[in-house]
Amino acid sequence: MGILRLGHVDVRVPDLDLATAYYTNVIGMVEVAREADKVYLKCWDEQDHHSVVLRYHPRPGLDHMSFKVESEDDLADLEGRLERAGAMVQRLAVGEERAVGQGLRFETPSGHVMELYAKADRVGSLLPAVNPAQPRPDGLAGIAPPRIDHLLVTAEEVGDATRFYMDVLGFRLTEQLLDGDGHQLGVWMERSHTPHDLAVVTGPNGGLHHWAYWLDDWDEIRRAADTLAYHDISIDVGPTRHGITRGETIYFFDPLGNRNEVFTGGYKPDPDWDVITWTEDQMGRGIFYWEDAINERFLTLHT
Amino acid sequence: MGILRLGHVDVRVPDLDLATAYYTNVIGMVEVAREADKVYLKCWDEQDHHSVVLRYHPRPGLDHMSFKVESEDDLADLEGRLERAGAMVQRLAVGEERAVGQGLRFETPSGHVMELYAKADRVGSLLPAVNPAQPRPDGLAGIAPPRIDHLLVTAEEVGDATRFYMDVLGFRLTEQLLDGDGHQLGVWMERSHTPHDLAVVTGPNGGLHHWAYWLDDWDEIRRAADTLAYHDISIDVGPTRHGITRGETIYFFDPLGNRNEVFTGGYKPDPDWDVITWTEDQMGRGIFYWEDAINERFLTLHT
Amino acid sequence: MGILRLGHVDVRVPDLDLATAYYTNVIGMVEVAREADKVYLKCWDEQDHHSVVLRYHPRPGLDHMSFKVESEDDLADLEGRLERAGAMVQRLAVGEERAVGQGLRFETPSGHVMELYAKADRVGSLLPAVNPAQPRPDGLAGIAPPRIDHLLVTAEEVGDATRFYMDVLGFRLTEQLLDGDGHQLGVWMERSHTPHDLAVVTGPNGGLHHWAYWLDDWDEIRRAADTLAYHDISIDVGPTRHGITRGETIYFFDPLGNRNEVFTGGYKPDPDWDVITWTEDQMGRGIFYWEDAINERFLTLHT
Amino acid sequence: MGILRLGHVDVRVPDLDLATAYYTNVIGMVEVAREADKVYLKCWDEQDHHSVVLRYHPRPGLDHMSFKVESEDDLADLEGRLERAGAMVQRLAVGEERAVGQGLRFETPSGHVMELYAKADRVGSLLPAVNPAQPRPDGLAGIAPPRIDHLLVTAEEVGDATRFYMDVLGFRLTEQLLDGDGHQLGVWMERSHTPHDLAVVTGPNGGLHHWAYWLDDWDEIRRAADTLAYHDISIDVGPTRHGITRGETIYFFDPLGNRNEVFTGGYKPDPDWDVITWTEDQMGRGIFYWEDAINERFLTLHT
Repeated sequence: MGILRLGHVDVRVPDLDLATAYYTNVIGMVEVAREADKVYLKCWDEQDHHSVVLRYHPRPGLDHMSFKVESEDDLADLEGRLERAGAMVQRLAVGEERAVGQGLRFETPSGHVMELYAKADRVGSLLPAVNPAQPRPDGLAGIAPPRIDHLLVTAEEVGDATRFYMDVLGFRLTEQLLDGDGHQLGVWMERSHTPHDLAVVTGPNGGLHHWAYWLDDWDEIRRAADTLAYHDISIDVGPTRHGITRGETIYFFDPLGNRNEVFTGGYKPDPDWDVITWTEDQMGRGIFYWEDAINERFLTLHT
Repeated sequence: MGILRLGHVDVRVPDLDLATAYYTNVIGMVEVAREADKVYLKCWDEQDHHSVVLRYHPRPGLDHMSFKVESEDDLADLEGRLERAGAMVQRLAVGEERAVGQGLRFETPSGHVMELYAKADRVGSLLPAVNPAQPRPDGLAGIAPPRIDHLLVTAEEVGDATRFYMDVLGFRLTEQLLDGDGHQLGVWMERSHTPHDLAVVTGPNGGLHHWAYWLDDWDEIRRAADTLAYHDISIDVGPTRHGITRGETIYFFDPLGNRNEVFTGGYKPDPDWDVITWTEDQMGRGIFYWEDAINERFLTLHT
Repeated sequence: MGILRLGHVDVRVPDLDLATAYYTNVIGMVEVAREADKVYLKCWDEQDHHSVVLRYHPRPGLDHMSFKVESEDDLADLEGRLERAGAMVQRLAVGEERAVGQGLRFETPSGHVMELYAKADRVGSLLPAVNPAQPRPDGLAGIAPPRIDHLLVTAEEVGDATRFYMDVLGFRLTEQLLDGDGHQLGVWMERSHTPHDLAVVTGPNGGLHHWAYWLDDWDEIRRAADTLAYHDISIDVGPTRHGITRGETIYFFDPLGNRNEVFTGGYKPDPDWDVITWTEDQMGRGIFYWEDAINERFLTLHT
Repeated sequence: MGILRLGHVDVRVPDLDLATAYYTNVIGMVEVAREADKVYLKCWDEQDHHSVVLRYHPRPGLDHMSFKVESEDDLADLEGRLERAGAMVQRLAVGEERAVGQGLRFETPSGHVMELYAKADRVGSLLPAVNPAQPRPDGLAGIAPPRIDHLLVTAEEVGDATRFYMDVLGFRLTEQLLDGDGHQLGVWMERSHTPHDLAVVTGPNGGLHHWAYWLDDWDEIRRAADTLAYHDISIDVGPTRHGITRGETIYFFDPLGNRNEVFTGGYKPDPDWDVITWTEDQMGRGIFYWEDAINERFLTLHT
């Protein structure tokens, strides 16, 4: 089956305590493990050990992005494809990353460190499987999203990066934004039957625009906005809707400057759907459907 | 009982056909009657003949605001109070305003023409009383709010205007925004057990900031935003929440430049509640709770 | 102004500890005070000292219902009207009921003890007035409704009771259900510009059918159902919608057998609206709009 | 990739005109094509030619269920697997089913006719790809679900059927309900990263319990209930929540007796999740989480 989904996001934070306080009290993730320079976090409806790793580093940004594949065979297969595509692939032994099985590490044409792995410690969701005790587990603070959803990174050459993600790693293109010459300014790609697991927009190589948490509906978007206001978190944009993906969203910043998103809705793409193509003149509605306009910060600020 | 609620808003529009198209197709009101220079509109869950009158005039803005009182006795009582307060009160005969019984017309200290009346032709809601056939009547276009909700006008001296509306007309103050000297910059007043039927903020005398349509919940706010985008209507602010009133909102402009709002939520004030006082440093959260910031246009643009 | 709203409901419970645990942990009210045989509770958005009193008594049911009036003058006025209508009115001194000012106590033609009062200790809502910190105050368990909404009692002669509540106490009739002979089987009456503050249906004199908590929207109804299931509370009916009031609802039982409701939505009645009349053949849709059918328990079980 | 999703459901209806009126006016599907004894229907956000076929037959029930696979290669691969498992596989030529490419037809151990195909005429969604014009396309009546979601069939031996669907066709088990001896009473299986594309419960071979339409959220469930009531459609159960899948639901009957469901919510299962196992004593919460009880009709009535 190949890549299943975004497994975890490792981010650099200049203040590990402040970041941990924010991601547990405001976002409402659960702290799973802690090391001298790292904190491991998961959302309440995720089964695996962690989905976000905060790593101390003087400069905020993306350390690496890790996608889960279905099996060890997929790893071997993808390793071959990566090497044939000219990538330098490093094998990671079991436990080289905490709670994660053997994996592959390589740099993508968009300048990002990416890892693939097939196994992770299964710690289970905070809900009992049977009698799920809705609406959400007791004792969680803040927004408390059930899981992470996707990642958006920047690349100087979106087209080159996209070919790599599609041809080598098997991502399916759901939507694209083209400039007047037909060059890709942004692409949205999926592996998990959602509008996007990974997106790339024009910007510096290696850049992180944001990663997103899934919320269950528009009502949760309102609650998230209330929670952000209560904690004096700076909202970048939203609540609003995207034309691209059709999802509803809020963008905001963690106290170290990394951009977060809460996301819900959107269509359910079938793998056999046609790619949706937006042209540059439609970018306003594509990015923020209600406003038909994009603030400069959203276009230029990334970590 | 005195004043019951905001009965109808008469607005000036420089293009009657364009305005009518917008208020029926985008807002989703029903055209009830038409004259050479006027169109009468109602929302689908209102019983009386009309709640908005569009009147041709080269300059957009408020023509007058009309509040309904419970009985003819209230009219007589309020006429006495107005005259004792020094207001010049003009008696309106039955039918002087279409479909409206006898009334009072006068100018308020904030420079607005205001009318009071006790009777209006009852045309009934578009829902059958029995078996209400939710979610909403068939055949309505656009946002289709069930009713109008409140009006916000501007005044050079908010404090003077407020004393008049409270002491003479019996409005109850629910919230106020004070500057550093304790002067009122904005007031929110009610007669119908809602957070506000009439609000006044600092600005030119006679100015109209907006009038608002009630929507039933946050989900309707999303649908309204989708409808506005579909019709290429310019959104001023939102969807967002107010700190003052706690309600959820979108502000936007009709094609002639008058500001509209869709509003929902908010607390249910009891008449015996204490007034809520905000100071100027809290104005950001008071006006737009999630953003903690107000765009210049919102503060300065009115008709 | 007369009666403002339902102030508090005093209910008999055969197990005070069990009832208190339920009303704080499942309903999510706040315990305000406790005496040997009484516990005082309030909802988080209510300003006055309490809205529900649990009183130990071997048999569940309604002890009395208390409505708040605007002023002491209203008390005097209503005392006169009650006496002229032949009611035996007992004056209650300040503090005779905890945290409540002077009042009137009398029995209604439907066999219920009713109290009126103008003053109560103001303890404030759990939200700060300014910067309201939505979505709801921290630290509340369970459903956590912002306030109580209405009460439904039973009477052998609904028509007689209704005349008393309307003619003597000033309730306004919003809807009624008539049998084939035009006799009232049920009536819905309001004082607070909502579809009902007090309703009466056919049944034994002195009976309590349920009292209701307000929830802010349909989404809160779902959360309430989840919370009830999590606590193994027996749901009587719902989630569903009423044709009468148009509101959305769940009925369920406290562990002592008193019926509770959570209620939201409904229209906003203006005092000048016509009464909505349902005939007996429309009762199914009137009571439960989606099912068009009423379970026997709902019609016959009360405390 | 193998099977992608439920492609279309072919149902028998004893009155083609009545069924068509219901599926277009109440459900809100679009009629795409019509033959003497068949009507082809699609939902507004589906790309392929049709998702439901109504076929005249004196007895209601399932004619056959059709799943879409990714490619012709998948067809060949599944044909081999089916034959090795002893199934009699019939090849369908292009166009043997209207608007559908070549396919496979066979009977499953649960006594159902099943078809697989890789191609269908692409007619496109009713939304423009770009500028999606939410909330939903104009001109649709009734509930208007964006797409079909899943199918639930009955089998005498659920375990045998399940092994076939999993081992031969590659379905993944998400949840199962076991009796005291560990036999499967019900199974929920997926191919599209949702809680279920196909479910099987104990009952007669060849039986249809229901098929389901996807709705976008809990608010749409309320609107669906209102629409059903407006059209006097008999609701079987709901609105309620399932413990199994966690989704929200209403069950109801088309005028010919086939059961329909509208479904939303639910978790997003990753293919690597553990199977959730319910035991028979948990069946009440498993099927209807809020009621903890199942009506007899739901357990025994199928077509």
